Amino acid sequence: FISQMNFDQEGNVTSFEKKKTELFQELSLQARDLRFQHSTSLIARNNCIILRMESLKAIVTPHSLLVLDFRGLGLEHWLVLELAPQLASQSHSLPFEFRALDAILQHKVNTLRARLNVVEPAMLDTLESLVDPKILSADRSKLHVLLQNSKSLSELETDIKVFKETLLKILDEDEIIEELCLTKWTDPRVFEESSLGIDHAEEMELLLDNYYMQAEELGNKTRELKGLIDDSESVIFINLDSHRNVMMRLSLQLSMGSFSLSLFGLIGVAFGMNLESSFEEDARIFWLVTGFMFLGSGMIWRRLLSFLGRHLEPSVAPLYFKLLLCHLWFWSWMPWQHWN
Amino acid sequence: FISQMNFDQEGNVTSFEKKKTELFQELSLQARDLRFQHSTSLIARNNCIILRMESLKAIVTPHSLLVLDFRGLGLEHWLVLELAPQLASQSHSLPFEFRALDAILQHKVNTLRARLNVVEPAMLDTLESLVDPKILSADRSKLHVLLQNSKSLSELETDIKVFKETLLKILDEDEIIEELCLTKWTDPRVFEESSLGIDHAEEMELLLDNYYMQAEELGNKTRELKGLIDDSESVIFINLDSHRNVMMRLSLQLSMGSFSLSLFGLIGVAFGMNLESSFEEDARIFWLVTGFMFLGSGMIWRRLLSFLGRHLEPSVAPLYFKLLLCHLWFWSWMPWQHWN
Amino acid sequence: FISQMNFDQEGNVTSFEKKKTELFQELSLQARDLRFQHSTSLIARNNCIILRMESLKAIVTPHSLLVLDFRGLGLEHWLVLELAPQLASQSHSLPFEFRALDAILQHKVNTLRARLNVVEPAMLDTLESLVDPKILSADRSKLHVLLQNSKSLSELETDIKVFKETLLKILDEDEIIEELCLTKWTDPRVFEESSLGIDHAEEMELLLDNYYMQAEELGNKTRELKGLIDDSESVIFINLDSHRNVMMRLSLQLSMGSFSLSLFGLIGVAFGMNLESSFEEDARIFWLVTGFMFLGSGMIWRRLLSFLGRHLEPSVAPLYFKLLLCHLWFWSWMPWQHWN
Amino acid sequence: FISQMNFDQEGNVTSFEKKKTELFQELSLQARDLRFQHSTSLIARNNCIILRMESLKAIVTPHSLLVLDFRGLGLEHWLVLELAPQLASQSHSLPFEFRALDAILQHKVNTLRARLNVVEPAMLDTLESLVDPKILSADRSKLHVLLQNSKSLSELETDIKVFKETLLKILDEDEIIEELCLTKWTDPRVFEESSLGIDHAEEMELLLDNYYMQAEELGNKTRELKGLIDDSESVIFINLDSHRNVMMRLSLQLSMGSFSLSLFGLIGVAFGMNLESSFEEDARIFWLVTGFMFLGSGMIWRRLLSFLGRHLEPSVAPLYFKLLLCHLWFWSWMPWQHWN
Amino acid sequence: FISQMNFDQEGNVTSFEKKKTELFQELSLQARDLRFQHSTSLIARNNCIILRMESLKAIVTPHSLLVLDFRGLGLEHWLVLELAPQLASQSHSLPFEFRALDAILQHKVNTLRARLNVVEPAMLDTLESLVDPKILSADRSKLHVLLQNSKSLSELETDIKVFKETLLKILDEDEIIEELCLTKWTDPRVFEESSLGIDHAEEMELLLDNYYMQAEELGNKTRELKGLIDDSESVIFINLDSHRNVMMRLSLQLSMGSFSLSLFGLIGVAFGMNLESSFEEDARIFWLVTGFMFLGSGMIWRRLLSFLGRHLEPSVAPLYFKLLLCHLWFWSWMPWQHWN
Repeated sequence: FISQMNFDQEGNVTSFEKKKTELFQELSLQARDLRFQHSTSLIARNNCIILRMESLKAIVTPHSLLVLDFRGLGLEHWLVLELAPQLASQSHSLPFEFRALDAILQHKVNTLRARLNVVEPAMLDTLESLVDPKILSADRSKLHVLLQNSKSLSELETDIKVFKETLLKILDEDEIIEELCLTKWTDPRVFEESSLGIDHAEEMELLLDNYYMQAEELGNKTRELKGLIDDSESVIFINLDSHRNVMMRLSLQLSMGSFSLSLFGLIGVAFGMNLESSFEEDARIFWLVTGFMFLGSGMIWRRLLSFLGRHLEPSVAPLYFKLLLCHLWFWSWMPWQHWN
Repeated sequence: FISQMNFDQEGNVTSFEKKKTELFQELSLQARDLRFQHSTSLIARNNCIILRMESLKAIVTPHSLLVLDFRGLGLEHWLVLELAPQLASQSHSLPFEFRALDAILQHKVNTLRARLNVVEPAMLDTLESLVDPKILSADRSKLHVLLQNSKSLSELETDIKVFKETLLKILDEDEIIEELCLTKWTDPRVFEESSLGIDHAEEMELLLDNYYMQAEELGNKTRELKGLIDDSESVIFINLDSHRNVMMRLSLQLSMGSFSLSLFGLIGVAFGMNLESSFEEDARIFWLVTGFMFLGSGMIWRRLLSFLGRHLEPSVAPLYFKLLLCHLWFWSWMPWQHWN
Repeated sequence: FISQMNFDQEGNVTSFEKKKTELFQELSLQARDLRFQHSTSLIARNNCIILRMESLKAIVTPHSLLVLDFRGLGLEHWLVLELAPQLASQSHSLPFEFRALDAILQHKVNTLRARLNVVEPAMLDTLESLVDPKILSADRSKLHVLLQNSKSLSELETDIKVFKETLLKILDEDEIIEELCLTKWTDPRVFEESSLGIDHAEEMELLLDNYYMQAEELGNKTRELKGLIDDSESVIFINLDSHRNVMMRLSLQLSMGSFSLSLFGLIGVAFGMNLESSFEEDARIFWLVTGFMFLGSGMIWRRLLSFLGRHLEPSVAPLYFKLLLCHLWFWSWMPWQHWN
Repeated sequence: FISQMNFDQEGNVTSFEKKKTELFQELSLQARDLRFQHSTSLIARNNCIILRMESLKAIVTPHSLLVLDFRGLGLEHWLVLELAPQLASQSHSLPFEFRALDAILQHKVNTLRARLNVVEPAMLDTLESLVDPKILSADRSKLHVLLQNSKSLSELETDIKVFKETLLKILDEDEIIEELCLTKWTDPRVFEESSLGIDHAEEMELLLDNYYMQAEELGNKTRELKGLIDDSESVIFINLDSHRNVMMRLSLQLSMGSFSLSLFGLIGVAFGMNLESSFEEDARIFWLVTGFMFLGSGMIWRRLLSFLGRHLEPSVAPLYFKLLLCHLWFWSWMPWQHWN
Repeated sequence: FISQMNFDQEGNVTSFEKKKTELFQELSLQARDLRFQHSTSLIARNNCIILRMESLKAIVTPHSLLVLDFRGLGLEHWLVLELAPQLASQSHSLPFEFRALDAILQHKVNTLRARLNVVEPAMLDTLESLVDPKILSADRSKLHVLLQNSKSLSELETDIKVFKETLLKILDEDEIIEELCLTKWTDPRVFEESSLGIDHAEEMELLLDNYYMQAEELGNKTRELKGLIDDSESVIFINLDSHRNVMMRLSLQLSMGSFSLSLFGLIGVAFGMNLESSFEEDARIFWLVTGFMFLGSGMIWRRLLSFLGRHLEPSVAPLYFKLLLCHLWFWSWMPWQHWN
C-alpha cells in the first residue's frame, strides 16, 4: 500500500491509500517506472511526468498531481497551504502540467536556497571570528562549526550539481521536452486553445532553463563560499605564524637578558667563593663590582638586542656583524665567530 | 583449457572445462574478442555480449550466460545463490539478455558501494579522532589508517570513473545499444512477443542509464569524502598550531618569571660576595633585601605579563609601549628601546 | 508603476512612469518576459531584445531603447551623458539595435574592467608589502585587505563567468543570433538598405564575439591574479618559517651559552659552600678558579656552537660527532651519546 | 642521407642509407610529410602511414615497414629480435599495416608502462620511509628522490596525455581511420580476401581504441600516484608538527621545573647573603630551609604541571583556573591574573 | 596616419606612411576590421587575412603582406633580415598567403618558446638552490626571483592559451579555413596550377594544426614547470620544518642539561647559606658534595636524554615510562606523573 495525495486543477486535495499495482494500472505505468532509484529524477512516461526531488515523489498527469509517500517528510504544510493554491491559480495561461512542474521545481530550488541561507551566515560568522588577528589560538568550537558547515556545503554542492545535471539532460534533448508537454498529446482541444501564439515545447524549455539558471546561481555562490574558506584558512595560518614569530622574538629578547644576567652573575658567584681575593676589606669594591654586574649585563643585553634587530634585516646584518666583531676584539677567542 | 559456468534462462547451472578454441567456434567469436585486456569492458560481438567487470568475465548469449574463469575469485557464493535465481525469475517481462546484464551490472555497482561502505566509516572515524581539539599531537597510527583509506578511496574513485566511462561510451552511441539487444536480431518470435509497446533499445538505454546514475552517486560521495579529508587536514593543522601558540605563550610567561627571578637574584648574589658592604650587622637589612628580591621579581614579572598581554593585541601595543617607557624612565639607558 | 527612460535613434531622451501592464501591451510582451529573474540575461522576444546586466534592465526595440527602473542605481550620469550621444552617432552604418546592444555590452564590460582595476592594484600593493622578506610577522590590517580583495575577486570572477556564459549560449545557437537582428524582420526597407554586402547575423555574431573575447581577457587576468595570490602566500609562509628558523638558531646559540655558564658556574657555587676546601688561604686559587670558570664556559660554548654549525649540515655531522666524542673521552659516561 | 631499416611481411630485414629525396620519390611523399615536427604523431599520407613515437620514426606501406634514423636510439635490440618476428607472424588474419601498427603502438605503450614501473616503486618506497611517524626530521636525500620522481611522473603524465590525444584525434574522425586501412585502397584482391565478414575500418578503430584504453589506465595510475604524494605530504607535515608539539610540551614542563628551582633557590641565595638573619646558629634551620627549598620547588612544579595538563584541555581550563587562583589567594598581588 | 611595411612575393620590402582611410579603401575593408581589439586574432575578411599577434599587426593579401605600426616594437631586425627572405623563398610550392601565415605563426611560436626558455632555467636554478637541504632559512632574494618568474610563467601560460584558442576556433570551422585560402578565390589560374593533387583547405588546416600542436607542447611544458614549483615548495616546507625539529631537539636536550645543573646546583646553594649544617669542618664533605653535584646532574641529564630518545619513539614510550617511574619510586610525590 502506498499513501498518496491528489491535487486536481481546481485546487481540490484528496489523500488516500492505494495498492501499488492499482496505481500502475490506473496510469498504465510499469512497476519499474515507480521505483524512484535516484535521489533526483524527472522523466516522462506514457503521458505522465514522474519526478523525484529528494524526499518528494510525484506523478504529474494532464489533469492532476499525485504526491506519493508524503507522510513524515515535513512537507504537509507546504503541500496543503502553498502547493494547492498555486496549482489552482489561473494566472498562468498554460496547461496544468506546467503549473505543477513550476511549483515543484520552485519548491526544490527554494529548499536548496534555504539550505545555503542557513550555511552561509554561519560560515561567514565563524570565519570572521577565526581570522580575527587578535586571537592567539583558534577557538576549537569554532573549528568544529567550520568543519560541520564545510561538510554541509559539500553536500549542498553535490545536490545542486545533481539537480542541474537532471535538468541539463532534459534541456539537451528536444524530444524529452516535447514528451513533457502532456497536454499537447492528450488534449488537442485544450492544446489548441492554449497554444495561440505559444509553442508549448519552447515554454517548457524556458521553464526548465529558468530553474537551471537559478541552480547555477546557487552553485556559483557555493563555489565563492568555498573559495572564501580557503582564503580564510590561509589568513588564519599567517596569523598564527605571525603571533608565533612575535612571541619567539620576545622570548629571544628575554633569553638575551637572562644570558647577560648569567654572564655577569658569574662575577658575583666568583666573589662569593670562599677563596681569598684580597679585595675583601675595601667597602668600595662591593659597590664597584655590584654596579659592574648590573650595568654590564644591561649593556650586553642592549648590544644583543640591537644585534638581533639588525640580524633580522638580512641586507644589513653581515656588515654589522663585522663591526660587532671588531668592537669585541678583546675576546677574539670567544664563540662569536660561530654566531652566523 | 578454461573453466566456465553456464546459466540458462530456467535457472539451471552447469560448470565444466572447455578448450578456448572450442568456445570460439561454438559462439563464432574470434580469439581477439576474448582477450579481456581491460579491467572493465562491455561490448557486443556477433550476437553475444562480452563483458568484464574486474575479476568477473562473462559472455551473454540470447539464451544463456557463461561466466569464465570463475574459480578462486570468491564469486562462487554470489554465482550460485544469487545470480542463478535472479536469472530464472520471470518478474522481468524482458528477454534473457536484459536480466543477465541487469544482474551483472547490479553486482558491479554493489561491489563498488560495498567498498565505499568499508572506507567511509573508517575514514570518518579516523578524521573525527584526528580533529579532536584536545589532542596535542596527532596519533600516528590514525595517520597511517588515514593514508591507507585515502589510497583505497583514490582506487575506488578510479574504478567508478572507469565504470562510468564504459557505460557512457555505450550510452553515447545508439548503434551499440541496438547491438546489445540480442533477442531483437536472433529471435524474432520472442522479440515480437516481448516488444508489445516496448522499444528494446530504449529499455536497454534505461537499464544502462540507471547504473550510470548509481555510479554517479557513488562518485559524488567519494568526491565529498575527499573534500572532507582536505577540510579536516586544515583543521588539524590549525589545531596543532593553536596548541603550539598556547604553549609558546605559557613558555614565554615562564621565561618572564625566570628573568625576573634572575634579575633580582643578582642582588642576592651581590650580597653573597665576600666583599664588605657595611650592612652586615643590621638584622633588618636581611629581611629588607630578601623582601625586595621576592616582591621586586614578582612585580617585574607582573609588569612583563601585562606588557605581553597588550603586545599581542596589536592595535593597543604602540601606545602602551610608550607609557611603559615613560614609567620606566629611571633606567633610560636600559635595553627597552630595542624591545619592539 | 515602473519608471523608464526612452532613447530613440535621434538621441532624444524622455523619461516617465508607466503601468507595467501598459508596457506589456505596447510591446506585445508577456508578464513573464519582464520578470528579470537572473542577474544577467539577454533574450529576444517578439521583435524586442530584453536584457539585464546586473542593475541595468533594458528593452531594445528596432527604433528605441527603454531602460527600466533606472533610478537610484547611479547610472543617471552614464545614461544621459554617454549612452544618448552614443546611440545617436551615425558612425555605425548598422541599424539601431546594433548600436544599442553595442553601447550596453560595452558599458557592462567597462564596469567589469573598472572593478578589476580597483581590485588589482590594491591586491598587488598588499601582496608586495606582505611578501617583503624583512617583516617578521604579517601586518594584520594587510591580511584583512587581502581577504576583502580576495572576496571581491571571487565575485568578479563569478560575474565575468556568468556574462561569458550568457553570450556563449547565444553564440552557440545561430537561431537566437538571427532573432536578435530585429531590423531584418521588422523593417525590410532599412534592412535592404543597410545590408548591402553585409550579413546582419554575421555582424551580430561579430559584435557579441568581440565582447565575449573582452570578457575572456578579463577572466584570464583574474585567473592570473588568483595564481599570484597563491604563489605569494607560499612565499609569505616560507618567509615566516625562515625567520622562525633564524630566531630559533639564535635562541639555541644563547641556550648553549647559558648552559656553559651554568656548568662552570657550578664550580663557583661549589666553592661558595660553607664547607672546607683547604684552598681558602691561597690568593692565587681565587684567580685560577675564576679564570677557569670564564674561560671554560667560553670554550665549551665555542665547541657547542661549532657542533651546532656542523650538525645542521647533515652530511658532515655523523663524522664530526665521532670526533667530538673522542675528544671528550674523559666524560665517557656523560649524556653525549644520547645527543643524536 | 638517412639511415633506414626495412621490414617486409615475410619478416626479412634489410637496412641501408638512402638520400631523403629518393625516399620521397619512391613513396610519392612530400618533404613536409617527413619533417616529424611533433614528438608524437600518426598520420596517413598517400597510402602510407607516417608515425613518430618519441625517438621512433616509421613509415608503414601496405607491404613493408620502414624505420628511419634508427641508429643510436637503443632500439636495435627490439627492432631485430621482437619487431621482425611479430611482423612475420601470421596469427593475425589481417593485412600487414595492422600488424605493423599493432607492434609499434604496443611498443609505445610498453615503454610508457616501463617508465611508470620504474617511478612507482621508487616513489612508494620514498613515501613510506618519509611518512614513518618515528622520524623527527625528514631525511633530505629522500626528499631529493621524491622531487626527482615527482618530476619524472609529471613528464610521464604529459607523454601519456600526448599519446592519448594523438589517438583520440584519429578515433574522433572516421575518415582518418578509413585512410589508415591502406590495403583497402591499394590491394583490392587482398582486401576482399581478408575482409570476409570483417570491416577493416572497424578493426582499425578497435586496434586504436585498445591502445587508447591502455594509455588511459596508465593515466589513471599516475593520477592516483600524484594523489598519494599529496596525501603523504600532508601526513608528513602533521607528523613533523606533532613531534614539535610533543617536544614543546616537554620543553615547557622542563621550564616549569627550572622556574620552580629558581624561585625556591632564591631563598637559598637570600640566606647566602652576608647579612645577619639571626637564624645562623640553629642547626635545624639549615635542614628546614633546605628541605623547604627542595620540597617547595617540587610541589610548585607539580602544581604547574597539572595546571598545564588542564590548560591544554580547553573546556576545563577556565574553571580550574579559578580554583588555582583561590588556592593561591595568599599571593593575590602576584602575576597569576595575567596568566591567561 | 599609420606606418606600414609592405612585403611582396619577390621579397621586395617598402615602408611608408598612409592614411587609415586610404588603406581601408584600397583593401575594401571596414574601419571595424582594423581595430585590433584583442591581443591575438586571426580572421579572414574580403580576401584578406587580418591578424594580430601581440604587438605584430599584419594584413595578408594574395600578393603581399602588410605589417602595420611596425615601429618601436623591436621587430625591425626580424622583419628585414628574416621575414623578407622567408617570404621570397620558393621552396614552398604553395601560394603566397601560406608562406606569409607560416612565417608569422612561426615567429609567434618562437617568441613564446623564447619566453619559456628565459623563465625555465631561471626557475630551475632558483628552485634547486631553495630546495637545498643544507639551508636553514630560505634566501629571500631567491624567493623574490621565484615570485617574479612564477608571475611571468602565469602570463606566458595565458598567452599560450589565448594563442591555442585562436587557432582552435579556426580549426573547428571548415568555412573559416576555406576563407583563409585567399588564392583559391582570387586567382583561379594560380590556384589550379598550385593545386595539382593538393587540397588548399587541407594544407591550411595542416599548417594551423602544426602550430597548434607546437603551442600545445609549450603549454605542457609550462604545466610541468608549475607542478615542479608546487612540489618544490612542499619540499622547502618539509626542509624548514625538519631543521626546526632538529634544533628543537637540541634545545630540549640543552634545557634538560640546564635543569639538571639547576637541580643539583640547589644543593650547592643550600650549603652556601649562612646556616649551620654541622658539616663545615670536614674537608671530605666538600669534595663529596661537589662530586655529587656534578655527577648527579650528569646522570640525571643522561637519564632525561634517554627518556627523550624513547619518548619520541611512540610505541615504546608508555612501557619505558612506567619503568622510569618505578626506578624513581623514591620521589613518588614528585611531578613526574604529570609528565605525559
